[in-house]
Amino acid sequence: MATRARSEERRAEILRAALEVIAERGYRGASLAAVAERVGLTQQGLLHYFPTKEALLIAVLEERDQWDSVPDSQWRLDLLGSLVEYNAMRRGIVQTFSALLGESVAEGHPAREFFTRRYAAVRGSMAQVLRAEYGDRLPGGLTPEQAAPLMVAVMDGLQFQWLLDPDAVDMPDAFRDFLRLLSGD
Amino acid sequence: MATRARSEERRAEILRAALEVIAERGYRGASLAAVAERVGLTQQGLLHYFPTKEALLIAVLEERDQWDSVPDSQWRLDLLGSLVEYNAMRRGIVQTFSALLGESVAEGHPAREFFTRRYAAVRGSMAQVLRAEYGDRLPGGLTPEQAAPLMVAVMDGLQFQWLLDPDAVDMPDAFRDFLRLLSGD
Repeated sequence: MATRARSEERRAEILRAALEVIAERGYRGASLAAVAERVGLTQQGLLHYFPTKEALLIAVLEERDQWDSVPDSQWRLDLLGSLVEYNAMRRGIVQTFSALLGESVAEGHPAREFFTRRYAAVRGSMAQVLRAEYGDRLPGGLTPEQAAPLMVAVMDGLQFQWLLDPDAVDMPDAFRDFLRLLSGD
Repeated sequence: MATRARSEERRAEILRAALEVIAERGYRGASLAAVAERVGLTQQGLLHYFPTKEALLIAVLEERDQWDSVPDSQWRLDLLGSLVEYNAMRRGIVQTFSALLGESVAEGHPAREFFTRRYAAVRGSMAQVLRAEYGDRLPGGLTPEQAAPLMVAVMDGLQFQWLLDPDAVDMPDAFRDFLRLLSGD
């Protein structure tokens, strides 16, 4: 049991180090070697915890989802605007998410299952948030289940435009425009 | 001049072959070797036209943009719905676009400039289409320039959700929901 606890602690330490490396060097610079060095492991030692770069990055994204998560009953639409604002200040992790999402669309990619599962869950949560705010019909006439995939799509799509050209796209502002569109104001 | 014409013809032939290979085998299967074989070139011979897989794929996406392009004055919002419907029937090229878009967010990636330039142009075109349809304010209150990046984001974001889980996301239907939201109906 003590060994197991130590191992979990080590795993958590590696994820924090990976997040730091990602923030500093971006997706491309987040090599297993760089992460291993930061936690004082050999690359071989790191492979014991995460056998590939993809496995490590998926674990980082899963961990971020945990930290970002809000109990479904607590979610409000305006919190989403704040989340997008917050994301605009942590470029490295957004870049990692977007790059891995792109890779995952190829058949057999190790991140495919993570994203497929994640999107089903996120669409479900968003539909709940929208239903709590608007009931069974949004002001524009859509149901929460129709609006949820659009909301998720806007968040992801804006991230790509913003990563490519941050001066041309104000991501938080654009997302708030979308929320306004939904609200029918 | 005759040599140049032959070379351009060869280039076009390679792009058509690449498109076929992508349609049949997806992004991952679209290797330079597979494309070279289809046009009866050695891989070395193909490298003369396209030095890397990325260069070839960017050229394929540029070519598709040309084929898909509609003179700005002819665009109408409902044509966009048809374009999304059409994209839902050509999974290979959509997968290639999405995968390359994902890769391009890393610093120094060869496709970065293509996508950055493309998004600036597409946002501009979309704003024009929206202005032609609605004037200076959309029914929901946004300006065409505010709505354009959202429209592009929805198209891209839905492609990812659809590629990952085609049974869960009806891409053309979802996009028409978004158009309805914009129209305020």
